[in-house]
Amino acid sequence: MKAVEGGVCAPKGFRASGVAAGIKPGSTKLDCALIVSDAPATVAGMFTTNVMKSPPVYRNQDVCAAGSARAVFLNSGNANAATGERGHADVQTTVEAVAGALGIGAEETCVCSTGVIGVPLPMDRIQNGINNCAKALSAAGSPDAAVAIMTTDTVPKEFAYEVELSSGTVRLGAIAKGSGMISPNMATMLCTITTDVSVTAADLRSMLQAAVDLSFHQMCIDNDLSTSDTVLILANGESGIPPIDPDSNDREQFQAALTELCQELAMALVRDGEGASKFIEIAVSGTASDDDAKTIARAIGNSQLCKTAFFGEDANWGRFACAAGYAGVAFDPADLMITLGDLPICSGGLAADYAEEDAAAIMKQHDIRLTVSVGDGSGRATFWTSDLSHDYVSINADYRT
Amino acid sequence: MKAVEGGVCAPKGFRASGVAAGIKPGSTKLDCALIVSDAPATVAGMFTTNVMKSPPVYRNQDVCAAGSARAVFLNSGNANAATGERGHADVQTTVEAVAGALGIGAEETCVCSTGVIGVPLPMDRIQNGINNCAKALSAAGSPDAAVAIMTTDTVPKEFAYEVELSSGTVRLGAIAKGSGMISPNMATMLCTITTDVSVTAADLRSMLQAAVDLSFHQMCIDNDLSTSDTVLILANGESGIPPIDPDSNDREQFQAALTELCQELAMALVRDGEGASKFIEIAVSGTASDDDAKTIARAIGNSQLCKTAFFGEDANWGRFACAAGYAGVAFDPADLMITLGDLPICSGGLAADYAEEDAAAIMKQHDIRLTVSVGDGSGRATFWTSDLSHDYVSINADYRT
Repeated sequence: MKAVEGGVCAPKGFRASGVAAGIKPGSTKLDCALIVSDAPATVAGMFTTNVMKSPPVYRNQDVCAAGSARAVFLNSGNANAATGERGHADVQTTVEAVAGALGIGAEETCVCSTGVIGVPLPMDRIQNGINNCAKALSAAGSPDAAVAIMTTDTVPKEFAYEVELSSGTVRLGAIAKGSGMISPNMATMLCTITTDVSVTAADLRSMLQAAVDLSFHQMCIDNDLSTSDTVLILANGESGIPPIDPDSNDREQFQAALTELCQELAMALVRDGEGASKFIEIAVSGTASDDDAKTIARAIGNSQLCKTAFFGEDANWGRFACAAGYAGVAFDPADLMITLGDLPICSGGLAADYAEEDAAAIMKQHDIRLTVSVGDGSGRATFWTSDLSHDYVSINADYRT
Repeated sequence: MKAVEGGVCAPKGFRASGVAAGIKPGSTKLDCALIVSDAPATVAGMFTTNVMKSPPVYRNQDVCAAGSARAVFLNSGNANAATGERGHADVQTTVEAVAGALGIGAEETCVCSTGVIGVPLPMDRIQNGINNCAKALSAAGSPDAAVAIMTTDTVPKEFAYEVELSSGTVRLGAIAKGSGMISPNMATMLCTITTDVSVTAADLRSMLQAAVDLSFHQMCIDNDLSTSDTVLILANGESGIPPIDPDSNDREQFQAALTELCQELAMALVRDGEGASKFIEIAVSGTASDDDAKTIARAIGNSQLCKTAFFGEDANWGRFACAAGYAGVAFDPADLMITLGDLPICSGGLAADYAEEDAAAIMKQHDIRLTVSVGDGSGRATFWTSDLSHDYVSINADYRT
């Protein structure tokens, strides 16, 4: 498995584009993206569990249930969420326009929208965006697509890998965007993954679930689950190698690559979290189950007081201990060990014997690893989070203005 | 029921004091408080559910299980949490010193500590604080006690009521402190309530639970549940009126007064929340149960994005709808109604027809009421929260320094 260029166009038979259509009034940034497979692709997706899920989410769930897709149209600047019947009608108009421009079926077309909630899509501009995206499609279009889906993201997120299977080489590519309202449950904000492997829809769904559980489900930027979270994967078989046998070593290798890709994306989202000045990895072990470890890691990663301590570069381990304690997982405080980088700061539930200046030096780093052990169980989990900064408050106090 | 002066000393037979003992190195603020009942009092308490609960919490649970108390000693500047065996030994030393100074039993003595986690108590200073508190006890001591338990609070919280029962007048008084790490579950940060009513321990516990469920359990400042949350109530019977009959109208009246007292305290804690520039009341209705309504109200009240929108005075109702949607309670988005003050801003899950400047004018107020309805069920709940401001980040980034 090795990193390659090309993003979502690294796999064979995919083209992409990104154009500016003025979706957010007055904006000249790229805001519409299109990803197209030359051949019908097996598709699977994971979606927000929010009751207020957006019309595009319902649409993509239908396409994934049918199991085959050719195109994904994405826009930033407007989430088409809390838009009711009009929102659903706008989705239908959008997929018909995309299908018409590409000469494919509307039922093969997914659509993702991100941005402000509660405002109808400007459909004349969406129509222009679709037309210009279709014209601009190319095998070099992934970088523009990655930029076009950004909202408060400051850098595009785009990755691709080559994976050697027993019968030949396959490729995986992806773009994703964050970077607030990020507390995924079943998925995260918009992410589209492409691959030229051949695989059944059921197996693709199963592998996506496994990858997402170890990536987007183990991160947060704030504690808000969005209306629009969507991860889609399209597998078009254009590598030409035979379909993956669900019981083979090839499947394990492909699963590992897909999981690693999703983890790279999740970490990239956290690094670019709204206002983030730190990237924090929290590794929890010693619980009865992996789920218990994840619960503790999430409590620390979600804690406003832990996140402000990271922002303040204050090794206030009492807050980490406190958050572990309220996570909802029973443990004996006397078993609690907390290590900051390589420095034990809490041992047996008490302050370890360390020099505050050594802890302060670690807290000054941009990337910080916090290791928490609560016993001798075999459960373990890794979670990624950002700090809570003044910039986070500023970004979100001014979001609509 | 009417408000009176005197705080925890308003009920007959209680004295209190607050002194400066330098618990936080270099500090000259009042930091030790003592509340004493002249006669043995029935006692009940509610406590944090945190696994890392502090040694004082264990102590108070034991005293409440026995059911009788005479004194509560409280200190700020140090939580005596995550202090292990030494922390438990320090609690024992403290209650013995208090008992010695007052000529009461150690088993009748509660102790509450709040402040930094993970640092042993400075016992020489605690000893001085106990001695000076005992000397300073008076019926006018409640204001000093209320100040002495403050950490990041900017104002003391002290209330008292007189309640007319059928057989005479009884009194209730309380002091409490916040103002960060406030997401109570079973209780909140330190609160001591006194009353001169006569009541059984079981009934006192039952009434306290009912009052706390409608007050401290319906508020948050951040999403952090502390190691030290403690609500204690001491009922010494010194009013001289007969014990409350559990089946009487008097009990209902006393319960109503106790609930209102706890609600006043909860609202005061939120108003003085760390960095708070707004006081927000969230009223949710239309759910199948009150618990469902509380779950939705809590999701909105806990949401970093809703709280930053309040700070930014931005009527971004999409965030309120989004938080309601991820709370974990099923509802039909078409039933969602959101009203800001008296202004409908979301109707049938869509933007209502309102002028943005009217919404902006309401968001500029200090006290804001948000009403959310999700159907025609009879469930309802009220929740209080603060906004998430730059000052919150600054206070918590610098807490230990």
